Amino acid sequence: MFFHVQKLINDIPVAEPDPAAAKALQEGLGGQFGEMRTMMQYLFQSFNFRGKAKPYLDLIQGVGIEEISHVELIATTINQLLDDAPNYRGDRTPGEEGSTPLRIALEQGNIQHFLVGAQSAMPVDSTGNPWSGSYVYNSGNLTLDLLYNLMLEATGRLQKCRLYEMINNRAARATIAYLIVRDEAHEKAFAKALETLGVNWGHILPIPKFDSNKYPEVKKLVDMGLNNQQYHWRLDGSEMGKIFRGDSPAHDGQLQVPSNAPEGAPVRLADERPEEFAPGIPDEIREMVENLARV
Amino acid sequence: MFFHVQKLINDIPVAEPDPAAAKALQEGLGGQFGEMRTMMQYLFQSFNFRGKAKPYLDLIQGVGIEEISHVELIATTINQLLDDAPNYRGDRTPGEEGSTPLRIALEQGNIQHFLVGAQSAMPVDSTGNPWSGSYVYNSGNLTLDLLYNLMLEATGRLQKCRLYEMINNRAARATIAYLIVRDEAHEKAFAKALETLGVNWGHILPIPKFDSNKYPEVKKLVDMGLNNQQYHWRLDGSEMGKIFRGDSPAHDGQLQVPSNAPEGAPVRLADERPEEFAPGIPDEIREMVENLARV
Amino acid sequence: MFFHVQKLINDIPVAEPDPAAAKALQEGLGGQFGEMRTMMQYLFQSFNFRGKAKPYLDLIQGVGIEEISHVELIATTINQLLDDAPNYRGDRTPGEEGSTPLRIALEQGNIQHFLVGAQSAMPVDSTGNPWSGSYVYNSGNLTLDLLYNLMLEATGRLQKCRLYEMINNRAARATIAYLIVRDEAHEKAFAKALETLGVNWGHILPIPKFDSNKYPEVKKLVDMGLNNQQYHWRLDGSEMGKIFRGDSPAHDGQLQVPSNAPEGAPVRLADERPEEFAPGIPDEIREMVENLARV
Amino acid sequence: MFFHVQKLINDIPVAEPDPAAAKALQEGLGGQFGEMRTMMQYLFQSFNFRGKAKPYLDLIQGVGIEEISHVELIATTINQLLDDAPNYRGDRTPGEEGSTPLRIALEQGNIQHFLVGAQSAMPVDSTGNPWSGSYVYNSGNLTLDLLYNLMLEATGRLQKCRLYEMINNRAARATIAYLIVRDEAHEKAFAKALETLGVNWGHILPIPKFDSNKYPEVKKLVDMGLNNQQYHWRLDGSEMGKIFRGDSPAHDGQLQVPSNAPEGAPVRLADERPEEFAPGIPDEIREMVENLARV
Amino acid sequence: MFFHVQKLINDIPVAEPDPAAAKALQEGLGGQFGEMRTMMQYLFQSFNFRGKAKPYLDLIQGVGIEEISHVELIATTINQLLDDAPNYRGDRTPGEEGSTPLRIALEQGNIQHFLVGAQSAMPVDSTGNPWSGSYVYNSGNLTLDLLYNLMLEATGRLQKCRLYEMINNRAARATIAYLIVRDEAHEKAFAKALETLGVNWGHILPIPKFDSNKYPEVKKLVDMGLNNQQYHWRLDGSEMGKIFRGDSPAHDGQLQVPSNAPEGAPVRLADERPEEFAPGIPDEIREMVENLARV
Amino acid sequence: MFFHVQKLINDIPVAEPDPAAAKALQEGLGGQFGEMRTMMQYLFQSFNFRGKAKPYLDLIQGVGIEEISHVELIATTINQLLDDAPNYRGDRTPGEEGSTPLRIALEQGNIQHFLVGAQSAMPVDSTGNPWSGSYVYNSGNLTLDLLYNLMLEATGRLQKCRLYEMINNRAARATIAYLIVRDEAHEKAFAKALETLGVNWGHILPIPKFDSNKYPEVKKLVDMGLNNQQYHWRLDGSEMGKIFRGDSPAHDGQLQVPSNAPEGAPVRLADERPEEFAPGIPDEIREMVENLARV
Repeated sequence: MFFHVQKLINDIPVAEPDPAAAKALQEGLGGQFGEMRTMMQYLFQSFNFRGKAKPYLDLIQGVGIEEISHVELIATTINQLLDDAPNYRGDRTPGEEGSTPLRIALEQGNIQHFLVGAQSAMPVDSTGNPWSGSYVYNSGNLTLDLLYNLMLEATGRLQKCRLYEMINNRAARATIAYLIVRDEAHEKAFAKALETLGVNWGHILPIPKFDSNKYPEVKKLVDMGLNNQQYHWRLDGSEMGKIFRGDSPAHDGQLQVPSNAPEGAPVRLADERPEEFAPGIPDEIREMVENLARV
Repeated sequence: MFFHVQKLINDIPVAEPDPAAAKALQEGLGGQFGEMRTMMQYLFQSFNFRGKAKPYLDLIQGVGIEEISHVELIATTINQLLDDAPNYRGDRTPGEEGSTPLRIALEQGNIQHFLVGAQSAMPVDSTGNPWSGSYVYNSGNLTLDLLYNLMLEATGRLQKCRLYEMINNRAARATIAYLIVRDEAHEKAFAKALETLGVNWGHILPIPKFDSNKYPEVKKLVDMGLNNQQYHWRLDGSEMGKIFRGDSPAHDGQLQVPSNAPEGAPVRLADERPEEFAPGIPDEIREMVENLARV
Repeated sequence: MFFHVQKLINDIPVAEPDPAAAKALQEGLGGQFGEMRTMMQYLFQSFNFRGKAKPYLDLIQGVGIEEISHVELIATTINQLLDDAPNYRGDRTPGEEGSTPLRIALEQGNIQHFLVGAQSAMPVDSTGNPWSGSYVYNSGNLTLDLLYNLMLEATGRLQKCRLYEMINNRAARATIAYLIVRDEAHEKAFAKALETLGVNWGHILPIPKFDSNKYPEVKKLVDMGLNNQQYHWRLDGSEMGKIFRGDSPAHDGQLQVPSNAPEGAPVRLADERPEEFAPGIPDEIREMVENLARV
Repeated sequence: MFFHVQKLINDIPVAEPDPAAAKALQEGLGGQFGEMRTMMQYLFQSFNFRGKAKPYLDLIQGVGIEEISHVELIATTINQLLDDAPNYRGDRTPGEEGSTPLRIALEQGNIQHFLVGAQSAMPVDSTGNPWSGSYVYNSGNLTLDLLYNLMLEATGRLQKCRLYEMINNRAARATIAYLIVRDEAHEKAFAKALETLGVNWGHILPIPKFDSNKYPEVKKLVDMGLNNQQYHWRLDGSEMGKIFRGDSPAHDGQLQVPSNAPEGAPVRLADERPEEFAPGIPDEIREMVENLARV
Repeated sequence: MFFHVQKLINDIPVAEPDPAAAKALQEGLGGQFGEMRTMMQYLFQSFNFRGKAKPYLDLIQGVGIEEISHVELIATTINQLLDDAPNYRGDRTPGEEGSTPLRIALEQGNIQHFLVGAQSAMPVDSTGNPWSGSYVYNSGNLTLDLLYNLMLEATGRLQKCRLYEMINNRAARATIAYLIVRDEAHEKAFAKALETLGVNWGHILPIPKFDSNKYPEVKKLVDMGLNNQQYHWRLDGSEMGKIFRGDSPAHDGQLQVPSNAPEGAPVRLADERPEEFAPGIPDEIREMVENLARV
Repeated sequence: MFFHVQKLINDIPVAEPDPAAAKALQEGLGGQFGEMRTMMQYLFQSFNFRGKAKPYLDLIQGVGIEEISHVELIATTINQLLDDAPNYRGDRTPGEEGSTPLRIALEQGNIQHFLVGAQSAMPVDSTGNPWSGSYVYNSGNLTLDLLYNLMLEATGRLQKCRLYEMINNRAARATIAYLIVRDEAHEKAFAKALETLGVNWGHILPIPKFDSNKYPEVKKLVDMGLNNQQYHWRLDGSEMGKIFRGDSPAHDGQLQVPSNAPEGAPVRLADERPEEFAPGIPDEIREMVENLARV
């Protein structure tokens, strides 16, 4: 059973709209190695888990639950990059007298962000291909599933490092840096689990291996230890800590399961966008709706 | 931010394996109108919500959170229908001397349940087509999104009623009946939200309209009032109850947001299946793994 | 602009239900070489036609219009093969007391014919893959488009001959035989058009080349000359006849554009199927609906 | 059985090429809520119709037939936006001496419009994803099918309103405005059918609700009453008018089934485009082809 | 540049047709972890290789070239399982007098094997989903690509072990056993390459880890040392042997690059199948074709 | 069995990077009528060949083997067009201090070329749709397969002529011109095979028909006779020459099977790209890797 708190797992600073960055970030949301995929892959692996080695189940599932919050975070980030990109300041009849307030959609980013969605995130990758269930890997063999998961997190981190090198928008950067650090922690979770099965990783971790501390937004989070922590997200406790502890498999500190969930950052309600007819409450019933919300 | 309790939202009774039923139930998991779709659709709609009418956001998101638990429930049900279907009772080298313990895979159900997964659920529909991100509908227009959601729940309920008429396996039936009742509650949630915008549904609800009380497994749940309740699944409270209250739009009782989440049913750890090499812990490290789990 | 007469282009005799045949016939409807594809391919080619060689436009478009009627015919045939397959004779609450009137869906044919559709045709192929816009070929080069169309019709005819060898249900056979003959006429239309560009086909036509007159249902239609006729389906006349005339490129008669459309066969309204909740008119409004229909 | 008149359902004024607008308009042709989808959905629903409520069948089918003409209209509009975009004025060997007359394809719009098609429409959406048969919804339950159709038309209209705000090319605008008005009429058709089943829509129609009369190209058509009319497109009469009559469900006039089809606008034969080798008639046979066309 | 010898990389014994086994084996040909995928993945990785570490390039490419021969082998095996399955013994007009020589297609295996192909292999998986380019993984990061390749081979081997447990047809078994052994050698190739980067695999290899020597068909090949050999398939020499040498990472022998390619097994020309119209040479030209072949 | 020489089938001159051209060329690699498709189609047709007409088998297979080398050639060309496009000249920590060395990815071409791949080719078309197994055509009917192959080569050639008109980058042009000429030779191979079955093509070949000699890069290759040659790529001889000989079906020379394979052009090892973390050898093991390569 799943529960929710209406907060973001990390804060997104306010920044200028940037539809091209929004299009790029879709790879991290709906791409083959994005957050929807890690989320669904780990949830399926945990629902389908076999055997009594519960700490492994709790580890895979714990990371999986966090990924739902990553989907929430990156979708919200994309929304902020799109929101108000057309800079429309009109009244309730956009397009009046033949004007073209949404012209920007033909010029930048993914046109469907404006035409199909209402300046908001979609379950597609950076070229607009929809997410596919065929991405989910779950062989049932524990060694293989862990090996795949390690590779998956490393690929996710690789792509986010490349996104970092493409985009310097402040809102995008905050989320990209956060995900670089969390993907690293997840890499370590699966690498450590494979260590308990006898693998020694030598010096290849994390993958890709380079000094991400040179990225200022990343360094701040690493200094807080976020790359070696993994919360379990369970209201009923977890045995994840039997695996996620001791030396980091990247030899850069001690792994730790914090006792408390992060506090989270507030969710800001997005503005109405009349040029998208979103939410497009008809005038006749606007008062009724507002009353209902006020009660 | 999302949290988890390792319990099922409804209990699944023990029953005989039934791979054909498992194949059918995949429609309810990874089909176009299945639980993965409702889950992703409502989560996207809530992450992308625009405007200040927070009760609508809380309603859509609350149903969306419940859908994650439905994905968990139906995946686990499919697992139970598949588990031990080959009735393999051998030691650790299945296939020894050329035997064919997995022959059943060629004869019943979806062969990939045995060949790609390890007698477990997959993100595909009842004919094996993978789930697609193109299923997710999120126009940004509140009226349209609610209308679609109502139609989506009604279609889900229609398909589950048809599944009921195909399958009488006890485990499958328990989950099908539960989802028929919950889809009905969700239909009412979106129908009621549209009532607050001024729509009057007359006598068409729920869709399909018929006396599902004639189904014994459904009647038991309706008698408990489950078809008129909607818990909010939020650890920080919810404004959903400003909409989900008063007369049911199907004129069959009073809508109510319960103050407590359901207690949930225990998750049973699935057995190892050596014929699937799942989890396939190598002998050399089995003790190590078991020690780790025991600590 | 398109118009319709509510008649079928060929009659479908009444026969027993046969879900396995229905699944097979889907290849002819929604398969890569089925009627939806020929229809969309020729319509796109005619909307996108370049140059002044209007007889070629009228030929391609004329065949395309006929293909819409083929989609109608084969969909209706599939419906007849599915209709009443479960042989349900109950009242308005199917599934009552836990019965399973739709059990057949787990045992024969494509389960989605019963679970997603209501014993009716779908835009998918014989293994359930949905029709794709990527099938449509339209290079803009007239020679190439004609060559592809010839190959397309020949492949369609080949598959229908194979279907003939799989199925002996009377309803299915009537439609298969009709389409074998019409695909042959369409092959000739495109082969003849290529003859006007200078190609000589020797003895290879029609493809596949064999004596389909040995098929009794086919012979009847060939004796009526249907394999050498092509009506234009235009209310405003057509120049198709400038190409479709003279010796058949298969050397088996004279091509002819008849002056009148076929008379067509009556469309039978399909029965209600309560076990599918189709159409599922609620009792409270049944009278209202029936009155409306009676007026 | 289907028939054709080689005319367009609405006129397309001559305007400058605009490949970016052509790419955008593909959403209205091959997108999930475009004209190919409405066409196929309503045709399938009518071929698969169950029960004796013939006016509903005739309504759904009548709208479906019109949609084929919409596919024709929007494909032709896209063609006009693409045609001559490269502004090539050479002789019959484009690319001679290494020149690059098609360079524009790398810079604007959808490259496949020039590379795969010959400056012409394709069955894909605005990001190039091919149309899919999985879009078609046909549950067999009349209430549900009507509800979906209403939602589908409203979403189509929403997207066309957004397209209006993106594009001010005269040819594109004429078609967009026409489709906004016709989608509104179709919304009303399905909303009215649901009214006959007892639903009262209050003030939410049409969706999205706003004053589209502020769009000059739309106003002209509304003033002609096109938003409250629905022709039946049947050569053998129709019972559609038993539903489509009386007060508009949007409370803006009286619904009416006109007794005559619109007159239609002439189809202009598109120019040859040697830079696309379309139609690319070889010199050796050009005279032969021209003679044939002249006869 | 690629070259070919018209021989099979391993012999396929003659056996009875078995369409259900043919359908299952498609997973190994066109499935997500089948031979088409390994082939395309390694070819892309080698064409896109970066840096001067040529032995790694030669290793990846060498395995990739072998995979083309695996595609040839498994396709041919599927063909043998399908060939003559209908047991048709008629003359050149199959279906004569309405008979149904292809009826088996409705009863066993993948219907498209008979309807779309002519009793022959297709690029699809075991449920009929077509192979997708999205399967190919090529991050450009050497460690990651090697890690993925190891996981890919292990998953392929896992699925082939499961196929072994499903099928005891002699022809199928010969190929399955061969691929189990070769996938193991490929696992070792990538595992060894990762060892050169510093990883120590402990006791987890091969994955899945179990005694495949208990499979008689496998044991024969292991006894010949095929699980520790890797030929380079290059006419111009290869540096692969700088990596593929020394102790096997599974601790079961010494890795070795043989100096000669295997001799190969003869390709048998498949019979004509008149019931499929394959090859369907028209009578009029049969002599001409046979003369041409005889010369 | 397949073999390899690490050389390119044609030389690629050094030229400036051009990501937009790289995106366009993907149509020729992973598009529906690109080299991956011809390769897989002819390989499947040859593995599945029926009957004793071995010269036809050898012809189809011979062309198929060459297509693997075309895949290698066009992938390498795309790589050269992408390589160093970002013009990054930094040390091993790209992105240091928040810089954006990969910004170009948001501005030109296919973003996944930089984000998913490491400035390298992918199995997708020019709009990013992945290659699909559904493209492969193999009916089993020889006449039909040959007809399709002729059409396929002609379409490939048509698209390459259009690419020629879009791009004047020297590296791209060399490969495009080479493929125009080779596609022409392949057209003739299949056209000639159909001539042996009795077809006379008149003056329509090659398709598209125009004077490609006006393209300087093409003329050079035609002058060398490359448009009328077809090597067999077999180490064990071939009967292809029984068909591919005599007058060209385009009446422009004599067809000829050369006795020797082309010499090939050297493969250049691509540079490391630290901004892509490709190959991203960790510093700790770089020496180890370099030693291994040096031995």
